[in-house]
Amino acid sequence: MFARGAVAEQVSGRSFVRAMVDVELALVRALVATGLAPAEADLSGFGGNGLELSRAELEQLGRASAEQGTPVPALVRELKRRLGSHPAASQLHRGATSQDIVDTAMMLVAKRALGPMLDDLGHSADTCAELAQRHRGTLQVARTLLQQAVPLTFGLKAARWLNALDWAHRELTEVCGHVLAVQLGGAAGTLAALGDEGLEVAAWLATELELVAPELPWHTDRSRPARLACALAASLGTMGKIARDVVLLAQSEVAELREGSASAAGGRGGSSSMPHKRNPVAAVAVLACAQRAPGLAATVLGAMVQEHERAAGSWQAEWEPLLELLRLAGSAASTLRELLAQLEVDGDRMSRNLEATGGLVMAETAAAVLGEKLGAPRAAEIVTDAARRAAGERRDLTEVLVELAELRAVLTPGELASALAPERYLGSSLALINRALAEHRRASRDRV
Amino acid sequence: MFARGAVAEQVSGRSFVRAMVDVELALVRALVATGLAPAEADLSGFGGNGLELSRAELEQLGRASAEQGTPVPALVRELKRRLGSHPAASQLHRGATSQDIVDTAMMLVAKRALGPMLDDLGHSADTCAELAQRHRGTLQVARTLLQQAVPLTFGLKAARWLNALDWAHRELTEVCGHVLAVQLGGAAGTLAALGDEGLEVAAWLATELELVAPELPWHTDRSRPARLACALAASLGTMGKIARDVVLLAQSEVAELREGSASAAGGRGGSSSMPHKRNPVAAVAVLACAQRAPGLAATVLGAMVQEHERAAGSWQAEWEPLLELLRLAGSAASTLRELLAQLEVDGDRMSRNLEATGGLVMAETAAAVLGEKLGAPRAAEIVTDAARRAAGERRDLTEVLVELAELRAVLTPGELASALAPERYLGSSLALINRALAEHRRASRDRV
Amino acid sequence: MFARGAVAEQVSGRSFVRAMVDVELALVRALVATGLAPAEADLSGFGGNGLELSRAELEQLGRASAEQGTPVPALVRELKRRLGSHPAASQLHRGATSQDIVDTAMMLVAKRALGPMLDDLGHSADTCAELAQRHRGTLQVARTLLQQAVPLTFGLKAARWLNALDWAHRELTEVCGHVLAVQLGGAAGTLAALGDEGLEVAAWLATELELVAPELPWHTDRSRPARLACALAASLGTMGKIARDVVLLAQSEVAELREGSASAAGGRGGSSSMPHKRNPVAAVAVLACAQRAPGLAATVLGAMVQEHERAAGSWQAEWEPLLELLRLAGSAASTLRELLAQLEVDGDRMSRNLEATGGLVMAETAAAVLGEKLGAPRAAEIVTDAARRAAGERRDLTEVLVELAELRAVLTPGELASALAPERYLGSSLALINRALAEHRRASRDRV
Amino acid sequence: MFARGAVAEQVSGRSFVRAMVDVELALVRALVATGLAPAEADLSGFGGNGLELSRAELEQLGRASAEQGTPVPALVRELKRRLGSHPAASQLHRGATSQDIVDTAMMLVAKRALGPMLDDLGHSADTCAELAQRHRGTLQVARTLLQQAVPLTFGLKAARWLNALDWAHRELTEVCGHVLAVQLGGAAGTLAALGDEGLEVAAWLATELELVAPELPWHTDRSRPARLACALAASLGTMGKIARDVVLLAQSEVAELREGSASAAGGRGGSSSMPHKRNPVAAVAVLACAQRAPGLAATVLGAMVQEHERAAGSWQAEWEPLLELLRLAGSAASTLRELLAQLEVDGDRMSRNLEATGGLVMAETAAAVLGEKLGAPRAAEIVTDAARRAAGERRDLTEVLVELAELRAVLTPGELASALAPERYLGSSLALINRALAEHRRASRDRV
Repeated sequence: MFARGAVAEQVSGRSFVRAMVDVELALVRALVATGLAPAEADLSGFGGNGLELSRAELEQLGRASAEQGTPVPALVRELKRRLGSHPAASQLHRGATSQDIVDTAMMLVAKRALGPMLDDLGHSADTCAELAQRHRGTLQVARTLLQQAVPLTFGLKAARWLNALDWAHRELTEVCGHVLAVQLGGAAGTLAALGDEGLEVAAWLATELELVAPELPWHTDRSRPARLACALAASLGTMGKIARDVVLLAQSEVAELREGSASAAGGRGGSSSMPHKRNPVAAVAVLACAQRAPGLAATVLGAMVQEHERAAGSWQAEWEPLLELLRLAGSAASTLRELLAQLEVDGDRMSRNLEATGGLVMAETAAAVLGEKLGAPRAAEIVTDAARRAAGERRDLTEVLVELAELRAVLTPGELASALAPERYLGSSLALINRALAEHRRASRDRV
Repeated sequence: MFARGAVAEQVSGRSFVRAMVDVELALVRALVATGLAPAEADLSGFGGNGLELSRAELEQLGRASAEQGTPVPALVRELKRRLGSHPAASQLHRGATSQDIVDTAMMLVAKRALGPMLDDLGHSADTCAELAQRHRGTLQVARTLLQQAVPLTFGLKAARWLNALDWAHRELTEVCGHVLAVQLGGAAGTLAALGDEGLEVAAWLATELELVAPELPWHTDRSRPARLACALAASLGTMGKIARDVVLLAQSEVAELREGSASAAGGRGGSSSMPHKRNPVAAVAVLACAQRAPGLAATVLGAMVQEHERAAGSWQAEWEPLLELLRLAGSAASTLRELLAQLEVDGDRMSRNLEATGGLVMAETAAAVLGEKLGAPRAAEIVTDAARRAAGERRDLTEVLVELAELRAVLTPGELASALAPERYLGSSLALINRALAEHRRASRDRV
Repeated sequence: MFARGAVAEQVSGRSFVRAMVDVELALVRALVATGLAPAEADLSGFGGNGLELSRAELEQLGRASAEQGTPVPALVRELKRRLGSHPAASQLHRGATSQDIVDTAMMLVAKRALGPMLDDLGHSADTCAELAQRHRGTLQVARTLLQQAVPLTFGLKAARWLNALDWAHRELTEVCGHVLAVQLGGAAGTLAALGDEGLEVAAWLATELELVAPELPWHTDRSRPARLACALAASLGTMGKIARDVVLLAQSEVAELREGSASAAGGRGGSSSMPHKRNPVAAVAVLACAQRAPGLAATVLGAMVQEHERAAGSWQAEWEPLLELLRLAGSAASTLRELLAQLEVDGDRMSRNLEATGGLVMAETAAAVLGEKLGAPRAAEIVTDAARRAAGERRDLTEVLVELAELRAVLTPGELASALAPERYLGSSLALINRALAEHRRASRDRV
Repeated sequence: MFARGAVAEQVSGRSFVRAMVDVELALVRALVATGLAPAEADLSGFGGNGLELSRAELEQLGRASAEQGTPVPALVRELKRRLGSHPAASQLHRGATSQDIVDTAMMLVAKRALGPMLDDLGHSADTCAELAQRHRGTLQVARTLLQQAVPLTFGLKAARWLNALDWAHRELTEVCGHVLAVQLGGAAGTLAALGDEGLEVAAWLATELELVAPELPWHTDRSRPARLACALAASLGTMGKIARDVVLLAQSEVAELREGSASAAGGRGGSSSMPHKRNPVAAVAVLACAQRAPGLAATVLGAMVQEHERAAGSWQAEWEPLLELLRLAGSAASTLRELLAQLEVDGDRMSRNLEATGGLVMAETAAAVLGEKLGAPRAAEIVTDAARRAAGERRDLTEVLVELAELRAVLTPGELASALAPERYLGSSLALINRALAEHRRASRDRV
């Protein structure tokens, strides 16, 4: 539930180690490129596969890293052992400190995880765009504080989901392009072990890994991890909002949406003995992921207060929460994409729920319409009174209103009925849907 | 401590009510501008002062808002009462719902609070730039895990503070320009009560209040409050990092920095009976603000999961944490500015602390220098051995090294001493300082 | 909304200052009692009223405390000024450090706030007990993942609320009795300024203030504030759970509960233009309080990591979050008490909602009953099949079942109908209600 | 670093599955014990080993559980498959719902993890007791806001660590004994599927698993998980405080403590090329664990607000944070125990640091001593003046004071020197150490 989709593979202990190996090898290439290391040290022909660690080796690395407080020294030792007499062996890790490797690997893992995540979010947005388009006229009741309020269309609701997903997509894209950066500074961020060549090596390393080359090493300036964590947490908040709406609209008593049968393949969400029940399993999974995000983001934010040139605890405290956030956001994005693709919309039920109060959700409109004829204060009086009677006698509001002589004097029953039709009280709904769609088209074009 | 500087005035219950009044009045102007309200309803001549609430009225408003779950209805009633027969009275709050007013007022308060906060952050950055410039050659020891490691200069440390403050400034500026937006949607976000004119009114409202005009109403898409909260929390993280460095460098046993005597006017941080003590009061205040941010940001992030068209609890839960974050970030920015402006730097003590290990912080360099002559493995052996002896006998490392015949065969004592001078092991420090300064000049130019 | 009930008065800046004054005066009495101060220093006759600070003085104190990083020195100066030549003046604050006063005052404020809070929680529990008793037979449908599942009674739901409230009451009572302790240690927790008498003074101080006398000063052992914060946050979690249930059961489409008309006095939650709407204002307020608790508790927990003999930031960061938690828990308790006292229960609607699926919620029972006659596998087959048909044809499950010859061979229609009556499938519901009631009686007795 | 000691084994995916199997089997035994299942269904002879899942099966279970939103149905299917025709197969999971199994398994995992954790905390406390005893007279300087303040002894510092650890031990012991409870309620907490026998089965289940038998099922009353999470987080706070003290006292410039060489076996914390460096690796690991706790506890507290009879997201969100907290607290306890056992205390350095200010830390005492002779105001004047001169001229305070004629008139140099000896200004230090030791002996006795 918390490690679904591509992210399950991309955000694991194994993939983090692989990223560290990638960083070490890219550093050697950067040293060669800047002339600090001899051309023979180039590992291009060596093949990364020979450097893949087995599960047992990973576990041993875990133990060593608990002893040392960092996995890097043991990893470098193991890599040197494997490289044997290859000229790269003596260049490995040159000029770097453990934190350089761990920080850059974290950025690399983030970059790799964000790829499929952005893809999933993009597909979810596309599906919302289709829902917004298809249901632009599907009437539904708006609910404030979970009470029926006034009409809207399901298309507008989908357009809002769309707009929020586009925001999340944009934020995470920006994080990919501007936040995920190489870290290379050596023991104290001075790049001292690389003489005058340090900045050039760092630039090459960024090119090699397709990460941003930062102005300065950022070993104790944690603005980047914080920004990443916040963008992930906010995207989870947006996904959670959609999932919460789905859960509420899927309630037995509301039944306007339900998770699709395809997603119920293998019985998901279904219950053989309780056929009336279709558990919103996907939405629940998204919500569970979303609820865990704020606490993790708080930990990363709290860890920004780091000591001197390497923090004693705060830096190390970031590692797992960042990976968790990537895992949760990736899982939720994958689940949400599936959920939306298979969502079943019951327009009839939406319509029936809208009518359930006998037109009382139109009381606001009624007051406005009558206000034009009778003045606002008198109109308010009449409608309040009529609404109370309609509620008390379980009758339709229009029915009660047309009985009033004062009202008949200014409006025919037909005029009244048409004025109180919910579809007449949608304001800028269509325009808003169009805006969201246009914005999404623009955003999608930019993505390609 | 938690409400210092301009923010004490700008982020209070009173200023929030004032912002709500400003929003209601701007809405009337927008209605006039779009022709929905008659020209006479314009309140430009009325003067906002007549609408200022007394403390007693504010308290009554607080009680009413606890009853209703929102302060807006009681406020609108009071404003109507004051406007009396003015034509604006009947236009007040037209087309809006309570949430529109509260959300837009929150954005307005944020905008007003961010002004002085950005000014304070900018001044702090300027001071760091001066420190970086002045101390570009002031040797200091870098500390990792709070252990002395290798040399750096205090100028580089200041350059890092500068770079992190510039990042925070940029983020908050972006929030001002792109995130703080008007919210106008009416009961369900359809703008139904404004007929076809809703979007135009919303655009005018944005112009009036100098806030962003959003694509869609964002009543239950909380990406904007979340982004604001995260940027504030991250800026507090950066300020906290600087303050933590100051506290650690001001320790009695380190004594490289201390909070200035001007800031100690009135005895701040000083103690008449303990003249050896200069409490880092300002840094402690910044840290206390910073530590409270993650929990508050988490609450705002967690509140993103909102129900339908108005949340039952999550929306309301945002209010105070957002105000708190503004207050804490504003206070910290004001305090930090003062702290940095008056910071006393003891370059002699930095130098003495660097030498305290008898050159052991240069062991890494020694191994590198000797490696070129004797090969890395042999050099490492020699240096490890010499370092142990130096530490054991409390002698200087260079002194121990020059006694070794093997070494004297390849290096003269003078060559060795000069090779091990800390100022020779600063790598790209100067280049990094220059980068940070250049980047800051660029950023400062853009700000104007 | 966030400062309702008695707590609004008890947890304010003013009340915190009053508590600090009370601690300073109690300390003088303790010094007199142990013979360290002369009998004339006793202030019993002086009257605390003369020491009440005006609003202007409070604001000045706020400013001074921002300068000094603590409000105590300025407060002590002001108190000395007021005491003039009274012999107590020279004894004031003797042996104490600022943190002693602030910490003890915090505990005092907590104690004073917990009194009415426990009272409110106790009354809420009593009301739940009445609801559990009265509705022990009121059928309702249980909902898992917000889907209708199997029957329960509303009495059992109320019994669970009761049980959870009793837990919260017990926790907070324990906090009052064992956690809220005097802090007196002097500058470094050695009580050095009081010679050999320190522990005796501390014991007297505890007696004076009716707080626990701790084994050791706890200036940098923050187990006590952490325990207080957690108990408050957990009580808010429990109140939030009840409020969430109320909001969900008050939804227009569910309508089993609604907030009472008395609480709607002055229109609370009601809407003149939308009479069908009864906003669950009280429940929303409780939820908003509850949602803010975890972030605040996290801040207090995070602040436990304090440096040496007085923390630089972590201690100061505790102050407002602790007061916030007291305020939120107190407000929520006051609101919940009112909410429960006026809760309107619609048993008919509960019954209709239970029947809405045409008996499908009894499918599990049907399978069990038939299993005894036909074996579990065959029974499951029959029921699944019948349930699907019933759902598809919108008929009652019993109706579909009685048409089956295989079933009529083993059960008469009457037997089947009676076996499938929801009230037959309540398991231990009654016994559980009785347990909760008995436990509550026991707990209530202990409280007196 | 985050999964050290016994907890690495006890809090894993594998151990959670094992606990679920244990619960399912205990439930069958409980059914047999209450006569609901036939005696032949007893699995005592079957042996749990045959039910151990392979890694591949665990991964498959993970996937199935992501599909279903719970691991239980797939697990039960697998167990039934393995039991084959054994009479237990048809009794498996009878009367239970998935949540019953997951919740009870979580409590079981907690119980198993708390065993070694309490053992580690107990040993750490024992070591602190020894340190308190051994160093009861070892002078050290107290530091407030990281500034040297007045004298204390390292024994008192250790006594405070001891006292805080005893508190944490007591809390977690109470959690074991009163909070960790069986959950058995069936689909809606009514135990309906077990007829009248439900409560008896639940009681037997508790006996079988040695967990508390709760008054009521607690499926949506999350007071128990919240209490567990808070106690774990608070224990991490206490461990973090000790670790922070160690890191600060191990700073190169302070050097009063360092992590022991035994713990540096294999080079831990040591650096071959930088022999002056002894990284406080263990303390850093404890701090990293501690910093992650508040965010996780906040998630569990936030998850208390659960819907109806099973929450849609909040319940599921609890799982991993609870396991994380167990893992972090267990790891930290194991690391801290080792750290304390091997801690190296440098009493000489403590003494030198205390004297570093030339007696200025005794200014408070000097004023007190002179106050008795010259009156407090005059004494304060003299000492302030002398302290300033001593600080300015880098001389010893006593030296400056004895030069003053006014002072020599009332005190001989010998009397002054002895009055200003730090060991004379320790107040109740010894008594407090004794209290902590006595309390610890009492607590240890109770534990056995």
